[in-house]
Amino acid sequence: MMTLNEVAEILRSKDNIEILTHHYPDGDTLGSAYGLCLALQNMGKNARVILSGKMAEKFNYLKSGVKEQNFTPQFIMSVDVAAKSLLGENREKYENKIELCIDHHGSNTMGVEKSYIDNTAAANAEIIYDLLHIMGAKITKEIAASLYTGISTDTGCFMYTNTTAKTHNIAGQLMDTGIDFGEINRAMFETKTKEKLALERMVYDTLDYYYDGKLAIIYTTLAMQSKLNLGDDQMEGLASIPRQIEGVKMGITIREKKNKEFKISVRTNGDTDACAFCQQFGGGGHKAASGCSINGDLITVKQRLIAAAEGIL
Amino acid sequence: MMTLNEVAEILRSKDNIEILTHHYPDGDTLGSAYGLCLALQNMGKNARVILSGKMAEKFNYLKSGVKEQNFTPQFIMSVDVAAKSLLGENREKYENKIELCIDHHGSNTMGVEKSYIDNTAAANAEIIYDLLHIMGAKITKEIAASLYTGISTDTGCFMYTNTTAKTHNIAGQLMDTGIDFGEINRAMFETKTKEKLALERMVYDTLDYYYDGKLAIIYTTLAMQSKLNLGDDQMEGLASIPRQIEGVKMGITIREKKNKEFKISVRTNGDTDACAFCQQFGGGGHKAASGCSINGDLITVKQRLIAAAEGIL
Repeated sequence: MMTLNEVAEILRSKDNIEILTHHYPDGDTLGSAYGLCLALQNMGKNARVILSGKMAEKFNYLKSGVKEQNFTPQFIMSVDVAAKSLLGENREKYENKIELCIDHHGSNTMGVEKSYIDNTAAANAEIIYDLLHIMGAKITKEIAASLYTGISTDTGCFMYTNTTAKTHNIAGQLMDTGIDFGEINRAMFETKTKEKLALERMVYDTLDYYYDGKLAIIYTTLAMQSKLNLGDDQMEGLASIPRQIEGVKMGITIREKKNKEFKISVRTNGDTDACAFCQQFGGGGHKAASGCSINGDLITVKQRLIAAAEGIL
Repeated sequence: MMTLNEVAEILRSKDNIEILTHHYPDGDTLGSAYGLCLALQNMGKNARVILSGKMAEKFNYLKSGVKEQNFTPQFIMSVDVAAKSLLGENREKYENKIELCIDHHGSNTMGVEKSYIDNTAAANAEIIYDLLHIMGAKITKEIAASLYTGISTDTGCFMYTNTTAKTHNIAGQLMDTGIDFGEINRAMFETKTKEKLALERMVYDTLDYYYDGKLAIIYTTLAMQSKLNLGDDQMEGLASIPRQIEGVKMGITIREKKNKEFKISVRTNGDTDACAFCQQFGGGGHKAASGCSINGDLITVKQRLIAAAEGIL
């Protein structure tokens, strides 16, 4: 593995840079990418962010100050992408062209020769913050808003155990640039559309408990999504619901993405290993938050998950 | 107003200290009180916390390490108590005996001669943290857990705009003592009983919008509480629900405490002043979070609130 100083040296020497994000882009991959992109542009370089899939509207402020530049890419890197499959629609075009991989997932399987992976970083954006310091980049208010977004979203607003004293320290320094962190957090965590509220009420009706309440499962179907007239991006953010319930060790959210194709989000409390659980289905992630995909009909998918949980719970 | 050095000097010179909290005790009044109490005991003094009303079970860990001492009180102080009415059941006995008032509410009306009120502190526990430093008290893991609880709960886990870089800095230092902040935050913010989930579903059915969706109101009644078999302490924590809805400037939660006696919690977004609103009903608090009490039947109480909001929204 490289040092962050070496990463900084490489980026200093490069221009016309494309920054790849993971699919279903979240606050950390986006905040890392746009924060870094803006810093590179501010250094006089050409840079752009390559999205995989649609970015939710609530993230639009991350593009603030980022210029659309016309250039032929000469250096391609990824941020917060733990596996090639997570490149989504960009996989075929980019998977063999990535020259630099910056990530904070210990489970990273990208296999990029020049990689900087620090799983002690609560968010990938923490690494970008350190990197920009080494590069001597000025952390403008716009860059700070992007990095704060990454840190805040990946730590559940400093709630989760991946948070460190360093995380708080960086957050404080980013706040000193005058970012409207209250508005960022409201947009990320607090604001619910009326449609989302309606969805949550519907999802509560799907809640079931297993193994003496240690496992809780909720689901959404395409039919529910259609009935409420919700877009794909409005179906996110339900995964924390089942884990919140007292006594639950593992909370599973099953989401029908296409007919008989389900995205599974697993959240755990305490020692229960969500990553090991999801690896049984070809997925992965963090110990407390992982995901996988399973095809089939809803009943069968649910039964497979329940059966697989027995050994763990 | 006194300096914190003067407060420290007073506390150094006193013994047999009682620390008063506000009624419906929350994480900040409790965390401040138990953190300070433990530090005073560790200095060889006698000290105890005087609760007003029942403390929710989830806070029991705050008492960890605090000794029950038998002594005649010689010095009475309050933490995080902004008005004598907030002493609740302790008002009659204590209101004229308080010799020191430490608080972070700018609206403080306690009128105690020796007061330290810092409304730039996100939580009262931040002041206690500074105070303990001045007093040279060792911040043990138990004290840190109490102070972290105060800070985390009063800032919505660092989400709200009262959070400062200093808040993050203190949180990081408290974390360095090895506290299980993940477990604290889970207990404070994430864990819901099955009964609470049922309550939320019922409360969603009471949700109404006014003034083009700028005002949202929910309510709970004694009948609902009885139907779900919930204790008073289980009726807390609903106030953030109406404010979360997109477009809502003011979210009001009406809770029937006794027959025809209602506790009103007001939460606002942006520039809307919850404190000014609640002062119309003899209440008060912070700009974004205030409360008051109104008696009457539910319909009338609700209509008075809607009418009072017209001028503000």
